Amino acid sequence: MEKIRLTISYDGTNYHGWQKQDNVPSIQEELEKACHQLFGHKVTTRAAGRTDTGVHALGQSVALKVNTPIPISKIPSTLNNILPEDIVVTAAQKVAKDFHPQYWAKSKTYEYRVINAQYVIPQMRNYAYFVYQPIDIEAMKEGAKYFVGTHDFAGFCSAKNTKTMTTRTIHCLKIRQEEATILFTICGDGFLYNMIRIIIGTLIQVGIGEREPSEIRGIILSKNRLKAGITAPACGLTMCRVEY
Amino acid sequence: MEKIRLTISYDGTNYHGWQKQDNVPSIQEELEKACHQLFGHKVTTRAAGRTDTGVHALGQSVALKVNTPIPISKIPSTLNNILPEDIVVTAAQKVAKDFHPQYWAKSKTYEYRVINAQYVIPQMRNYAYFVYQPIDIEAMKEGAKYFVGTHDFAGFCSAKNTKTMTTRTIHCLKIRQEEATILFTICGDGFLYNMIRIIIGTLIQVGIGEREPSEIRGIILSKNRLKAGITAPACGLTMCRVEY
Repeated sequence: MEKIRLTISYDGTNYHGWQKQDNVPSIQEELEKACHQLFGHKVTTRAAGRTDTGVHALGQSVALKVNTPIPISKIPSTLNNILPEDIVVTAAQKVAKDFHPQYWAKSKTYEYRVINAQYVIPQMRNYAYFVYQPIDIEAMKEGAKYFVGTHDFAGFCSAKNTKTMTTRTIHCLKIRQEEATILFTICGDGFLYNMIRIIIGTLIQVGIGEREPSEIRGIILSKNRLKAGITAPACGLTMCRVEY
Repeated sequence: MEKIRLTISYDGTNYHGWQKQDNVPSIQEELEKACHQLFGHKVTTRAAGRTDTGVHALGQSVALKVNTPIPISKIPSTLNNILPEDIVVTAAQKVAKDFHPQYWAKSKTYEYRVINAQYVIPQMRNYAYFVYQPIDIEAMKEGAKYFVGTHDFAGFCSAKNTKTMTTRTIHCLKIRQEEATILFTICGDGFLYNMIRIIIGTLIQVGIGEREPSEIRGIILSKNRLKAGITAPACGLTMCRVEY
């Protein structure tokens, strides 16, 4: 058996997230089914991060053990022939036996897309959070600075969070605007359950003038989920890459 | 009865184009159904252009006659409450009794999206034409110049074209690249059946080195469909706006 790492992209719209569950479609189940068919043996996969229902990926990182005569360079295209069209393998490489896609990750980069417009653009309905009120980008940029660094993000995770350690480091949080589209790029050493979506929900409150940028500091220090903003919709979020 | 013009956006993925047909879903059918429900009387709509199966719109222009006490400014939001989520009305305005959305149009602007990448990006699979070979943008820009102006585009339309006059004027054809995405913007006084998609298919042949840019002139003059390139896929095309 060899250990390999796959880089995969997916449209999360039609899946109940990465993780395999009973009776609902998941990315993991589709990928393991395709691997089973291709390699002729059962395959268990492990991902760098468990994306939620509706969250997308451009560079999810997945580890698995395989026993196959197929050259590693041919694995992406042969798997893509089996996979549904909303899951695409873009790279495969051999990794060390003890490689772990989550624990070995140095950082992960996500992107969140907001569209600031009066009406939903139907082509983007599954790929962005539509905000109708005018958004002050400069205020959000000011607020974003408070998130960067090492903080206890206990107030920025869902009640479903199972991790006892809630301190994380955000390396950067950048915001750029292209016409009606506002793109947030966030890179950190790891993220708690719903953490990015709550950060975005809080920044949007700053953007639409419901909060001052400087309030963010106190919200983080409070470690109180109720002080932070709403959980922004899943469909705006894309896992872009994992750095090792 | 008052005549109104609606501006609508739609995701064409799940429809057999604009035009109403038996036994298959169409944008026109959904819109007329929603109007019937809202206004309480049968409504016949006419569009500026009949988009094909899978083609999208950001600013399709549609005319209809209505008899309603609903203020015109409320029509977009009330219709959007009834319409499926992949069709969105973004504006409504009163127009002259003899307004015709196609004949009155001075020009129409379409956008075509190509993504030049080794693998399909699943989130974009219904919104772009994926080309895997390296593309020479400068060669395409050079080739695009030959299309601008007034020409007989008899060689650039499908055999299904029913128009006897095949001369059209292209006001501009611009190409810009943003990372892997190549966006073509084409504005003209009108387009024959599949004309834009055949122009794009021909330019892509220039981009991947199968033809020289200067060959375009001869292809147009030949008026021979067989000399032009393939019909690029519908999903890359979006009708952006109609100018009156």
